[in-house]
Amino acid sequence: MKVFDKVAIIGVGLIGGSFGLALKKKALAKEIIGIGHRQKSIDRALRVRAIDQGYLGLDQIKGADLVVLSAPVKEIINILPKLKNIISEDCLIIDAGSTKSEIIKIAEKHKLRFIGCHPLAGMEKKGPENARADLFKNSLCLLIPPKKYNSQDLSRVKKLWEALEARTVILNSARHDRILAFTSHLPHAVVFSLIDCLKSDYLKFGAGGLKDTTRIGLSDPLLWKDIFLTNRKELLLALHTFEKSLQRLKSLIKNNNDGALRAYLEKSRDKRNGL
Amino acid sequence: MKVFDKVAIIGVGLIGGSFGLALKKKALAKEIIGIGHRQKSIDRALRVRAIDQGYLGLDQIKGADLVVLSAPVKEIINILPKLKNIISEDCLIIDAGSTKSEIIKIAEKHKLRFIGCHPLAGMEKKGPENARADLFKNSLCLLIPPKKYNSQDLSRVKKLWEALEARTVILNSARHDRILAFTSHLPHAVVFSLIDCLKSDYLKFGAGGLKDTTRIGLSDPLLWKDIFLTNRKELLLALHTFEKSLQRLKSLIKNNNDGALRAYLEKSRDKRNGL
Repeated sequence: MKVFDKVAIIGVGLIGGSFGLALKKKALAKEIIGIGHRQKSIDRALRVRAIDQGYLGLDQIKGADLVVLSAPVKEIINILPKLKNIISEDCLIIDAGSTKSEIIKIAEKHKLRFIGCHPLAGMEKKGPENARADLFKNSLCLLIPPKKYNSQDLSRVKKLWEALEARTVILNSARHDRILAFTSHLPHAVVFSLIDCLKSDYLKFGAGGLKDTTRIGLSDPLLWKDIFLTNRKELLLALHTFEKSLQRLKSLIKNNNDGALRAYLEKSRDKRNGL
Repeated sequence: MKVFDKVAIIGVGLIGGSFGLALKKKALAKEIIGIGHRQKSIDRALRVRAIDQGYLGLDQIKGADLVVLSAPVKEIINILPKLKNIISEDCLIIDAGSTKSEIIKIAEKHKLRFIGCHPLAGMEKKGPENARADLFKNSLCLLIPPKKYNSQDLSRVKKLWEALEARTVILNSARHDRILAFTSHLPHAVVFSLIDCLKSDYLKFGAGGLKDTTRIGLSDPLLWKDIFLTNRKELLLALHTFEKSLQRLKSLIKNNNDGALRAYLEKSRDKRNGL
């Protein structure tokens, strides 16, 4: 695929840093600059060679032919409208946000040359010091174009992720946010609450099962409050659906319903086997 | 420590099989027999050399100086009263059940020489084919004596688990069942419900986070319906506590409460860091 001349990564954390490393490994960019909030993050991204140059302000993205927004969702929403006056008309913008309806709305309103991306490759670790060139390898990247988009742009972004060895699926923003509310945002909400209700002095009795189950509770609070709040409606729907499932399980336990309880657990076990 | 002459393991699954392998590795038993429900399980336990001999009925446990009950909780409850007429007075009985109040009640009623054990070393895999001699190494084993017990028995059981390189903590059955309701039974109930509410066609969008969170949903339904039902009261209390935590999170999301939501997530993240 055609190599980018200048890629600007806004937000040089785990995802942004890994994206820089991956682009370099695959020689897909001549120059990569990073934009961060704090000099410390920029320095760490420079140290692991995820970016060639790093800056605190947005001015330096001028001349980029690809801008990647890998910041918390609310920051992406803040930055998007500012881009139009800095970048040229042929610059493509992508992001790595976990919710898409609000982001796509802004991109449509400002008629940006934008393709939403959601690489399902995050983890509870954060920061460029944990970045890996192969973070996206064998992962799924969801592509969410706005209502009006250039089909060549979509095709180029698709090829870009495939060059990083990710598979891609194209979705609209409503469907993306509905599905992710169930498969990602709901489990995070449930786990944060599960930890909340545990007494601290019980923790030492937690074995491997509890550790695995609550691992996503180590995720970045700043990132996740943005995800929860920018997908409120769908997350509340998912929580409601979960509560109905939990009520059913509770009543089977309360009523000592041996056979139906076993059937409920077997159905869940079998569904989990399909994951 | 003193070697056992004849150990009878009732229930030759993952835990029973691993216990047999561990005893052999540490040369703590002269003879190990296994008792199973199905010839197939016995054959598999024999094949991995977790036991020396295997039988379908209880008769062959005669002459044992240690009986280990590593079957589902309701089966342990069924078998316990039958032991008195088969074993000799100096035979020690231990178990590996995940709930203890009902088991201890039976042991007390029948005045058995019993020390309840709960090795926190299970996993979602099952069967003797997954048994490992080092399953208990570096794990925690909870010891739950009945109200009246012989202190030498408790000390011998403690030394036995320590010989298998497990740490031990002594608890009474009520406290055991209260704590485990929160640290183990609640997470399992929540995960089984979480899977229940997921549409099957959403599963392909599940990434590593969902996989880790729901791994315990692969646990044996037969084992877990017994655990839920024999610890109903405590589990329902834990579920109620969890629901209150979830309600609080939901209202922060519903009310778009940015600051308090971030504080809630940070508190959970910090608590999880202590696990």
